[in-house]
Order: sequence, then C-alpha cells, then structure tokens
Amino acid sequence: MNAEIICVGTEIILGDILNTHSQFLSQELAALGINVYYQTAVGDNDKRFSEILKNALDRSDLIFLTGGLGPTTDDITKEVACKLLEIPCHYHQPTAEKIKCYFARSGREITQNNLKQAMIPENAYILENNWGTAPGLILQKQQKTLVLLPGPPRELRPMFEYGVKPYFQSQLAQPIVSKNVRVFGIGESLLETKIEDLVRCVNPTVALYAKDGEVLIRVTAKAENSQKAEKIIDQMINKLSERLDTHIYGIDVDSLQQVVVRTLTEQNKTIATAESCTGGLLASKITQVPGSSNVFGMGLITYANQAKQQQLGVLETTLDTVGAVSEQTAIEMAQGLYQKSQADFCVSITGIAGPTGGSEEKPVGTVYIAVAHQQKIWCKQFHFARNQNERDYIRDLSCLNALNMVRLTLQCQDTFEKNYQ
Amino acid sequence: MNAEIICVGTEIILGDILNTHSQFLSQELAALGINVYYQTAVGDNDKRFSEILKNALDRSDLIFLTGGLGPTTDDITKEVACKLLEIPCHYHQPTAEKIKCYFARSGREITQNNLKQAMIPENAYILENNWGTAPGLILQKQQKTLVLLPGPPRELRPMFEYGVKPYFQSQLAQPIVSKNVRVFGIGESLLETKIEDLVRCVNPTVALYAKDGEVLIRVTAKAENSQKAEKIIDQMINKLSERLDTHIYGIDVDSLQQVVVRTLTEQNKTIATAESCTGGLLASKITQVPGSSNVFGMGLITYANQAKQQQLGVLETTLDTVGAVSEQTAIEMAQGLYQKSQADFCVSITGIAGPTGGSEEKPVGTVYIAVAHQQKIWCKQFHFARNQNERDYIRDLSCLNALNMVRLTLQCQDTFEKNYQ
Repeated sequence: MNAEIICVGTEIILGDILNTHSQFLSQELAALGINVYYQTAVGDNDKRFSEILKNALDRSDLIFLTGGLGPTTDDITKEVACKLLEIPCHYHQPTAEKIKCYFARSGREITQNNLKQAMIPENAYILENNWGTAPGLILQKQQKTLVLLPGPPRELRPMFEYGVKPYFQSQLAQPIVSKNVRVFGIGESLLETKIEDLVRCVNPTVALYAKDGEVLIRVTAKAENSQKAEKIIDQMINKLSERLDTHIYGIDVDSLQQVVVRTLTEQNKTIATAESCTGGLLASKITQVPGSSNVFGMGLITYANQAKQQQLGVLETTLDTVGAVSEQTAIEMAQGLYQKSQADFCVSITGIAGPTGGSEEKPVGTVYIAVAHQQKIWCKQFHFARNQNERDYIRDLSCLNALNMVRLTLQCQDTFEKNYQ
Repeated sequence: MNAEIICVGTEIILGDILNTHSQFLSQELAALGINVYYQTAVGDNDKRFSEILKNALDRSDLIFLTGGLGPTTDDITKEVACKLLEIPCHYHQPTAEKIKCYFARSGREITQNNLKQAMIPENAYILENNWGTAPGLILQKQQKTLVLLPGPPRELRPMFEYGVKPYFQSQLAQPIVSKNVRVFGIGESLLETKIEDLVRCVNPTVALYAKDGEVLIRVTAKAENSQKAEKIIDQMINKLSERLDTHIYGIDVDSLQQVVVRTLTEQNKTIATAESCTGGLLASKITQVPGSSNVFGMGLITYANQAKQQQLGVLETTLDTVGAVSEQTAIEMAQGLYQKSQADFCVSITGIAGPTGGSEEKPVGTVYIAVAHQQKIWCKQFHFARNQNERDYIRDLSCLNALNMVRLTLQCQDTFEKNYQ
C-alpha cells in the first residue's frame, strides 16, 4: 500500500509553524507496515490544494490529510476532498450534539459556523475527537482511502493513537506490533556492525534511528495474532540484549532520565546534582520527569570557582593546580555534594562547553563527570567534539552521559564493582 | 515569483528525522519577499524524485532542493536535476582542491567517491561550503532557477545566510530588509488589536509569529537602497515601541536570556537563581548563553522542603502555614539566596508544575516568582494553565517570566519603583 501525507495550512508554508505532523505520521505508519512515499504541505488555497490532492489520488492508495477541518471559510480540506471524490455531505445530528456539548463544557458560545463541522460525508467513518471539535474522517472511494485529521497536534496525536491506529490494525490481515529498544553509549556504525545480520531480518524487521548520543531500535513483527507478534519481538530483543548488553537502557521508554527516575523510585534511592558547565541542565532533565520529587531533593549549580569552593568545599589548591576542569575537581564536587545532600547518588559535572575557554591540553568539549555512591566514587573523562561552537551539544551529551553512569550503576552490579573506587 | 521547496531524503519520509528545512527556508524566503507555495519531501529514489521535480518545474519559477548532495550513490539530487534540465557536469578543479583540503584538515582519508562532489554543472553559480564538503549550486535554465543545498542543517543554514541570501538580495530590483522585534508578556490577540492598523501596512509589512508566551514581529521593507529600507523599518519600530512600550524586549536578538545576560554584562551586574518547580531550567537557560559566566556564579535547586530550609533558610513556620508554593516562600528563597550569593539579582521560583500536587485553592500552574534587588523585593503570582498535564509548558513559562522580570528591572527604572518593596 502506497501512502502519502498532505498537510494543509498557510501557516506551514509561510514558515510560521514547524510541521511536526509529517514526521509523526511517517513514523507511526511505518510501525503499521505502511510505507509513506511523499510528504507535501500546501496553503489553504482551493485551487492549489485540489491539484495536490488530484496528483496524490493518481499515485497513492492511502492519503493522510492534516488541518483545514476548522469552522472558518479558510478550512477547505473536507470540502475539496468531497468535491473531488464526488461524495455528498449531510448534517450529522450526533456530531452536532457532541460539538454543542464541547462548547457548553468549556463555557464558550457556539456560533453557526461551528456546526459546519457537523456536516459529515456520506458513508464516512467518524474518528471521535475528544480533544477538540472537528471529528476526523476516513473516506473510501474507488480503491482510495483518505484519512482527514485535525491540525492541532494535541488533537491529531491522540486521535491517531485511539482512532486511526486501531482502525488500520483491524484492517490488517495480520496484526503488526512494534517495540522500541533504546540504546545509549554506542555509535550507530559500531552498533550496525554488531547487529548487521539482525537488521537484515524480514520478520521481525529491525530499524535503527540515530540521534545525538543514542540510537532507537524499532523491532516490528507481523503474526496471526498480537501475542505471537509480541513473542517474535521478544525473541529478537533477547538477541539484541546478548549483543548490546548494558547499552540497552530500556524498552518502550521515553528517555534516560525517565529510566533513572523510575529505577531510583523502585529502589527507594535518591539523587543530587552539582553542575558547572551544564549549568542546571542535568537537574532540569531529572525534574522534567513527573514524580521526580520522590528521588530528587536538591541540586547545586556552581558555575564560578568561588561557588565551587563555598558551596561544595572544592579546595583552592585543587583549582590552582589542576584547574576547575579536572578529575580532582569533579571528585571534590561530588564529595562536597554528598556532605550537603546525603543523597544515594551524588553526580557532578565540570567541563568546557565553549565557544571560548578551551586550550590545547583541554579543548572545548572536555568534560569530567563523577558519581559518588556508597562512599565510593566513579569519575570519567569525556571529549565531546563534533564541530566547533557546539555548546548545546556538549552540554546535552554531558547530561546524558551523567544519567547513563547512574543508570548503569543502578542496573548492573558489575559497573559498580569495576568502576567505583 | 512562485517558489517551492523540495527536501530529498529517505530519512525524512521514514520519519527518522524531523524536517526543519522547510520551515527555515519558508521563513527566510518570506523575508526576501519570495512566496513559497509548496513544500514537498521525497525519498532518495530516482523515479519518484524526477516526477516531483518535473511537476515543480511546471508550476514554479524558483525551486529550492535540499539534501542528496553527498558522495554516495544514494545522493541523486544534482544528477537528476541536471538530467532533467539537460545540463552537463564537468570536473571542477578548485572545488576538488577545496574538498581535499577539508579532508586533510579533519585528518580523514579522502575516497574517490568524495570527488563526485567536485562535478559541477555547466554555468552553475557555486555556493561555497565552509562547513562541509558539498558545494551548494544555483542552476538557471529556461526562466527556471534551481537552488541545491546540502542536507545537514549546520551546512545549509550558514550557506543560506552567507551565500543564498546575498545572491537573491543582489538580484532584487529593490533591496528587501527585515528586522525582528521580540515581544513578551502580551497575548497575540491583544497585541493584534493594539497594532491592527500597522499590520495592514504594505511597505513596510508587519507580520506576527506567535509562540509560547511571546510574539515575534517581523518588519520588512523594500526601498531603492538598504539604508532607505532600514529607515522605513526604524520608523515602524518607533511606532511599535510607542504602542507596545516595555513589552518589546529586543530587536534582532535570539532570546530573553540573551538580552538578560547581555544587559547584565553591560551594567556589570550579577544574577543568581533559586528554583523549585523549574528544577534548574532557569539556570540552564541563562548558562546556555555564551559568556554567561561573567554574570552568573551560582544557582540552587531546592526541590524538597528540607532543601529550602537548609540551603536557603526558608522558615519551617512559613512552609507549615502558607506552604512551599506561596509568596512568602518565594520571598524567603530569594532573600536566602542573597545571603549566599550576594548577587545583584536573586531570582526564586516556586510553583506547581503538575501533573499532580494541585488543589482547588492552588491549581496546577500556580507559580510565584520573586526577584530581590538592592535590598528590595518584587514578587509576582502567575497562573499558567492552558491544558492539563502541561508540565513542560508551565516550567518554561515560569522561567521566561522570571527572566522578563529581571529584564524589565534592568531596562526600566519605573518597573523598579513601581514593583519593588
């Protein structure tokens, strides 16, 4: 089945908003075994949108349309699609009632044009919208399927999850199931060589998605029922685990910080942070996770040397001899933090995020991370250098590696025994 | 001139990466007075890309192509474009030398296929690439202009700024100049009513771009030379300033934190932070700005009540009576921070970021921000509530408003006199 995505909205082609729908839908459809070949964006213009849609109907079986389902005259998606497919629309009482209820709930006045959204194409499959007023629609005619979704992401995403996905899953002869394996601390090329044979597998498929510092492996299986598909996936995940070992930090999880907060919570442990070059970013990542207050009580940002001395008791001689960006400073920061916080994991980061401050001996991107745990300490040196002036990249990678050191300690006794002194 | 954007890359249509080029180019081209009518993404597939490009040549005068200029056989953009336009390519010695130098500099081995990038279409205008190996190209044939740009954003963006923009500016009969006016603390609708007549102006044009908490106003003028265009813009900015007053935080600046760090540096002042619900995000925003170490020495994250007491001297009775999310706690946090840091501006934030922890009296989104300055203090209560469970939104808006309070104090004596007690 050839699919394509058309995002309708003048605000997209003006560059006013970033189009995130295309990526979201492409990823989700790939997981359902549906290949997307084209992504198009076009303004709220009758003529141009008609031509784009005509073109799409010529070359694709399945077309996803986003946006233009609102109540104003600018909103033309449904009207143009129905005109092209020659499908009449009728006033749909249950949808009208739903829209009226939505307005009543939010205490707003309903206007006549809002009821335009209650005009439903004949024989359309209605995707309920519990997050706004415009219902989604699935239209079918002459072997072509059109899926019309509302523009706001907070409406489109849950509608996909609770409406579109089940619809297509139920249409599949064989259900398709996916799991996301999250991997940290191994480059994409090395990872590929380690699992080269598995990537060539047909059922399940194994797809790699790389981003800064980490790789997502999506394992997707088809089988006669979802239990069997899950079993096929789990067998593949076992193989991946054998090859990648502790590089895998979670299955179907959002982020390293989520895994760290969750594992600390399960083990009833606490964490505290002392940051120099990351300037609060590590603490900010930890506290982004709902419920992090169970495991995180305090953090210090000691950007200036004076703060490192006064707040964390880093020795003046250390700063004078080996400098603020050094193993010894990282260690003293973590130890000082433990004195203050008594947290089970005391993490410190000190480094050079640039663009200035680098030297030949310690170039921009040099970072030391220390984790104090059970009276012992693990300190590691990093060099994050991809291009010049990548302050954000260096700060981000520093935080992810700090989280990963904590995660490894939590998940694996070996890490503790091997690294902590 | 009708323009369109085609992004070539299988990684885009698979949803592997987010396409940010379309928005970037649409925005930049709008500022040059060039209208974009279509954005398309297509994989590295000869046949499908050819068809897309043929279609584009039928309907548009100016086509921007991104990606597919690399050295591998997957990279087909230049080859397909030249085939369609019937333009031969020739080996271009200076480009080959440049690529060889790039490899020598980065200490990597050059392979034969890298020199594929030195094959230059006849009569092409070469856009120098100082951030990678593939040169950008501008091709012209039969009233059509094609602009080929490399896929990596860190190559494409500077190439646009230093190569494409000057090229098109020099082609314009009248130069077009833009300035960005950044506005904070006023909603888009209210802003629109205040400057309704100005938004209807034709030269300069005044366009609004809203995002969380702030609005960017882009003022664009045409004139016989850029000095005159700038003068037209500055007159408009004066009018905007009269209407919007201190809501304008900067012209052609990146962010509130940049303005705050820059102004603190100019005034030789320092800042320190004490954060509860934002958990380090405020400090992280400040330290994201290069050079922030001149004005920022330390920050504290006191997430738990115990940390607020021990690190900042917040009184137990305060926490017991009015609670951690209260004006009194915010004030005591800022005062305690001043004891520790002696910074000129001591900012504290305490609030409920959710999803849990809200009550009828203090719902999720209730935030108190205090700024201590010159022995006086300004504390303000906020309610950030748009939807449920918007933890990131609440944290972000809290930080931006804290920065804005500091910015207003720095920029305006009135703010100090009116608000500080």
